[in-house]
Amino acid sequence: MSALTPLHATRPLANAIRFLAIDAIVRAGEGHQGVPLGMAEIATALFTQHLKFNPADPQWPDRDRFVLSNGHGSMLLYALLHLSGYAQFGIDEIKSFRAMGSRCEGHPEFDPAAGIEVTTGPLGQGIANAFGMAVAEAYLNARFGDGIVNHYTYAFVGDGCLQEGVGQEMISLAGHLQLGKLILCWDDNRITDDGSTSLSISEDVSARFRVAGWHVIEVDGHDLDALSAALAEAKRDARPSMLACRTVIARGIARLQGQRGGHSGKLFEADADAARTELGWAHAPFEIPHDVLEAWRAAGRRSEGEYLAWRERLAALPDDARAEFERIQAGRLPEGWQRVLEDYKRQSIERGEGEAGILISAEINDRLAQLPERMVACADLEAPTSHKRSLHAFTAGDRSGAYVHCGVREHLMGAMANGMAAHGGVIPLAVTYLAFLDYERPAMRMAALMGLPVKFVFSHDSIGVGRNGPTHQPVEILASLRAMPNMRVFRPADAVEAAECWALAYEHRSGPSTMVFARQNLPLVRTRHSAENRCARGGYVLAQAEGGKRLVTLLATGSEVALALTARERLQREGIPTAVVSLPCWEVFDEQDPAYRQEVLGTDTVRVGVEAAVRFGWDRYLGERGAFVGMAGFGASGPAEDLYQHFGITPEHIVAEARRRL
Amino acid sequence: MSALTPLHATRPLANAIRFLAIDAIVRAGEGHQGVPLGMAEIATALFTQHLKFNPADPQWPDRDRFVLSNGHGSMLLYALLHLSGYAQFGIDEIKSFRAMGSRCEGHPEFDPAAGIEVTTGPLGQGIANAFGMAVAEAYLNARFGDGIVNHYTYAFVGDGCLQEGVGQEMISLAGHLQLGKLILCWDDNRITDDGSTSLSISEDVSARFRVAGWHVIEVDGHDLDALSAALAEAKRDARPSMLACRTVIARGIARLQGQRGGHSGKLFEADADAARTELGWAHAPFEIPHDVLEAWRAAGRRSEGEYLAWRERLAALPDDARAEFERIQAGRLPEGWQRVLEDYKRQSIERGEGEAGILISAEINDRLAQLPERMVACADLEAPTSHKRSLHAFTAGDRSGAYVHCGVREHLMGAMANGMAAHGGVIPLAVTYLAFLDYERPAMRMAALMGLPVKFVFSHDSIGVGRNGPTHQPVEILASLRAMPNMRVFRPADAVEAAECWALAYEHRSGPSTMVFARQNLPLVRTRHSAENRCARGGYVLAQAEGGKRLVTLLATGSEVALALTARERLQREGIPTAVVSLPCWEVFDEQDPAYRQEVLGTDTVRVGVEAAVRFGWDRYLGERGAFVGMAGFGASGPAEDLYQHFGITPEHIVAEARRRL
Repeated sequence: MSALTPLHATRPLANAIRFLAIDAIVRAGEGHQGVPLGMAEIATALFTQHLKFNPADPQWPDRDRFVLSNGHGSMLLYALLHLSGYAQFGIDEIKSFRAMGSRCEGHPEFDPAAGIEVTTGPLGQGIANAFGMAVAEAYLNARFGDGIVNHYTYAFVGDGCLQEGVGQEMISLAGHLQLGKLILCWDDNRITDDGSTSLSISEDVSARFRVAGWHVIEVDGHDLDALSAALAEAKRDARPSMLACRTVIARGIARLQGQRGGHSGKLFEADADAARTELGWAHAPFEIPHDVLEAWRAAGRRSEGEYLAWRERLAALPDDARAEFERIQAGRLPEGWQRVLEDYKRQSIERGEGEAGILISAEINDRLAQLPERMVACADLEAPTSHKRSLHAFTAGDRSGAYVHCGVREHLMGAMANGMAAHGGVIPLAVTYLAFLDYERPAMRMAALMGLPVKFVFSHDSIGVGRNGPTHQPVEILASLRAMPNMRVFRPADAVEAAECWALAYEHRSGPSTMVFARQNLPLVRTRHSAENRCARGGYVLAQAEGGKRLVTLLATGSEVALALTARERLQREGIPTAVVSLPCWEVFDEQDPAYRQEVLGTDTVRVGVEAAVRFGWDRYLGERGAFVGMAGFGASGPAEDLYQHFGITPEHIVAEARRRL
Repeated sequence: MSALTPLHATRPLANAIRFLAIDAIVRAGEGHQGVPLGMAEIATALFTQHLKFNPADPQWPDRDRFVLSNGHGSMLLYALLHLSGYAQFGIDEIKSFRAMGSRCEGHPEFDPAAGIEVTTGPLGQGIANAFGMAVAEAYLNARFGDGIVNHYTYAFVGDGCLQEGVGQEMISLAGHLQLGKLILCWDDNRITDDGSTSLSISEDVSARFRVAGWHVIEVDGHDLDALSAALAEAKRDARPSMLACRTVIARGIARLQGQRGGHSGKLFEADADAARTELGWAHAPFEIPHDVLEAWRAAGRRSEGEYLAWRERLAALPDDARAEFERIQAGRLPEGWQRVLEDYKRQSIERGEGEAGILISAEINDRLAQLPERMVACADLEAPTSHKRSLHAFTAGDRSGAYVHCGVREHLMGAMANGMAAHGGVIPLAVTYLAFLDYERPAMRMAALMGLPVKFVFSHDSIGVGRNGPTHQPVEILASLRAMPNMRVFRPADAVEAAECWALAYEHRSGPSTMVFARQNLPLVRTRHSAENRCARGGYVLAQAEGGKRLVTLLATGSEVALALTARERLQREGIPTAVVSLPCWEVFDEQDPAYRQEVLGTDTVRVGVEAAVRFGWDRYLGERGAFVGMAGFGASGPAEDLYQHFGITPEHIVAEARRRL
């Protein structure tokens, strides 16, 4: 890289970013200046010359998406939102950076109405979200045409995001799918938290992208003209593009720039003063000169013409097409969409036979073909999970497909689904085995934190997996997921509950739903038809105690509900009035009023929890006289029936535990 | 690839693998034939001509390590162990493949005494384990010299392992560290579970390895001579090597070979019969002709000379060096190793001041310099976690360093640590922030399942993180980890408990320990010296109730113990006899006898749990009158003190909750 050119002469717009960041970080007493100072020119080139956006309508569906994947550099984003004119980011908000209650939080937190497309912080998530946004865009473009959906997705990314496995998975699959409207700007500053990137990486990052089929442009990350030209070239190229922007971390702070401390070393007022002198910035803290602010605001209005033209095109659509577009944008389900679920419930009861849990889910979803906004992603388990059926594949050559073959990349799949949900206009399902949930879990946490309505679908949910053995048998995973705030975990007991739980999941918009299904047969436990969605309260009395006051309550979920029913029959035969409670969704049950919960759980009864998983978390329902029939450790390799016997998850054992406590 | 040459003429040894696999899978009624049939020649070339091993002493410390990362192909491994003469894998064991109680489980389960180096199944883990083994080998080679530690690590790997993010992280870091004794054999069969790999990947996998600095050899995966030559070349090359072995999945089963169904499509006796005809294998099921078996057994004895020479070299070592080598191989800690911990306890009490939680852990570990078998890995958080200190870096040029800069690759770090522990001779620590635990969690599950004594160390354990906000603030992660079988989770309250917990973690050999530390200051709560390790029972009464029968028990962990002590003072002042229980390790506490647990928890008292995390899991200790002071959802961005106030995790709130329940 040639000698650095001075920053003051040519780029007041970029320096406006720099000083907002410096001033806010000095005021807060902490923050990460490396990104906003190092990427100021890149951001300026993008926001003033390329990004299609409208601060007056941040949620314009056809806006370009912008993701700051290196989210610790949050002040870069807040500065951009302030400068370009987002009402929510006035100068007082900037001054409150990192204070309690500020919109300018330590990391950007999902707030699309204010211009924050996605929460970023855990490295790698943002670029995988951006990938998901580009998938959603391509699918919607195929559905609605260039006039209605046709935008780019940009992501800023640091070395960390590219070292993370999920980032590598993204590079590979985005190249495979040739998502030409996905453009990354890599902050190639050669510094990570530990110091030089050479401590932990030797590979030619650009070459790694090229191997995966990306279009790579190497560019001086402080040269506005070169950056703008590179962005223009990236937009033209049919491949996904990566701009390798050679930058100097924390550029502008002489004491720290280009060094390890540039990342987040403490900034002092003296640093700010020195920077003002060096960059010729003769303005007070948080003061942006009028002409510079005006230039930025003009940049914020740059897409107004495109915006109005887009609105005209939308208005000119045939009524049904426009209504459909507006419906999916709002996340509304179509009139009468539940009818197929009701039919399925009735038919399941008529048929009277059980079916493999995951195939029930597959059948239900196949019948929901009238939800074209649904996209299904799966991590190389199409055959055993069976959620493709009448869908066809989303590929480089055919964007109309609603089924994404993710390969063996669970983490990317989850983060992609988050990006799709954040984009809007699609409802993503992500399907794999429950044993691999942990691979996807960091993305699931982000979905819960953002409140995104992603449906995470899992098969093979217990030792019922059988002979593939303990690596493939979840035992602690249900508990570990139930511990997560704002995550609903559904584990239906049969086809009827599955239809009801899917209805609840599709209607739940303020957070993700996890749908957990057995590999094995789920015999019918709901043998009488009810128009009511009995799962809607999370738990309910499936079978009442008979012949006297309830003495025993058996609580179970999923495949173990049938075992509880068998145990109940035996206890009843022995004259012990026993109820069975099905608890398909703890989170919803816990939201019910105390009287309902007490009625379901029973007063002064022995309670036995039954689940082919660990006890952890169950005690809240069991009380001090409670017992639990389930797993105490990892599983084993053997036929499923043998394993249930081996681990004592049987009606006999349930009966014995109940009697022992009476 | 040129036309396939017939298999029967040239390779009875490889076909012996094929037919053991076919016969076992047909008998079991299920299994994955793709790998054993596709990689039979690769395995034969490796085991009969290159691998240094001794079935008579499977745990020979200097054996080459062999990892079947594509663990679903487990019959390949069992066949190899049987043929080469491992006593544990007699023909009856092979016949019991996938039956309950068999050693021939669905996936290989860690059993080094029987030749299974590591549990594999979840894709990507195995190659990352192999990487860890190669790191351990290089470190021990630097410590003990070529005569004592000098072996290769081989891993078989399928497309899935290489698509997984953790696999990509491994490729990148292994290339960076130039682990020349790590050799992968890629089963390039172009088929995954969904069908053609072209459904989900387009990149040139060999090129991706080359970009990362690997030595790549492309070879016909069914040509024994070419394979053997490639292995020889790989051994000579100073770079890590990847043999891209072009193979035909399920080769030998005409109906399935080269196709999607080859992976695990059901095999019938007719398939076995057809294969016998085609391959000219005129032997009954499970029958290996004498000459073939003898050739295999001879291969199993091939390294005997090397083995004896190695034993002689070990015996010839100076006594102290030999004793040291034997000590670390046995996983024994040196005489008196705890003395520095005892000194540290005493000095902490003398100093009387608190310190940042993670710095306490750093200081303790720095003082344990007399454990040269300790290796510390960290995911690009050297400065904030501070566990490097007097260690120096393990690099491509210096294998004597005990500190591995992993870059931003948490998942690899965890799986690498597992491989190091499985290798033996080193004690791995893996350090990052608790919020990033989920990235590492799939590896932690494998450590728990295998019972490996890895120490997973985490800093920044709660909202105490402060202004980096909810992405960086664990709330559910403690609970989600406590749900995991065979995982001990330690969350010490101060420097004294930290020393005690570290003592317990180093002594715990039958499973992993997770060490959780606050970012913020942990004031001293153990102000009186006790020679006893009070944390050794997992929980204990830190402060007794005074002035009457105990009415209130406050239970807390980590940074919240100090809050509970303050609350106790106030309650005591109000005349309410209150005890404080510290629960640094639930798993150990739950193993204590009921009388002790009851004594600690108190009988007929109000119990209030206090932890800056979710309640999930706490109910087991709280009883029906219990209360909990902690988090109900995700955190927020603000100064730590403000957050504790905002979320009501304060002595005032603890007092109020206790009084409300009285």
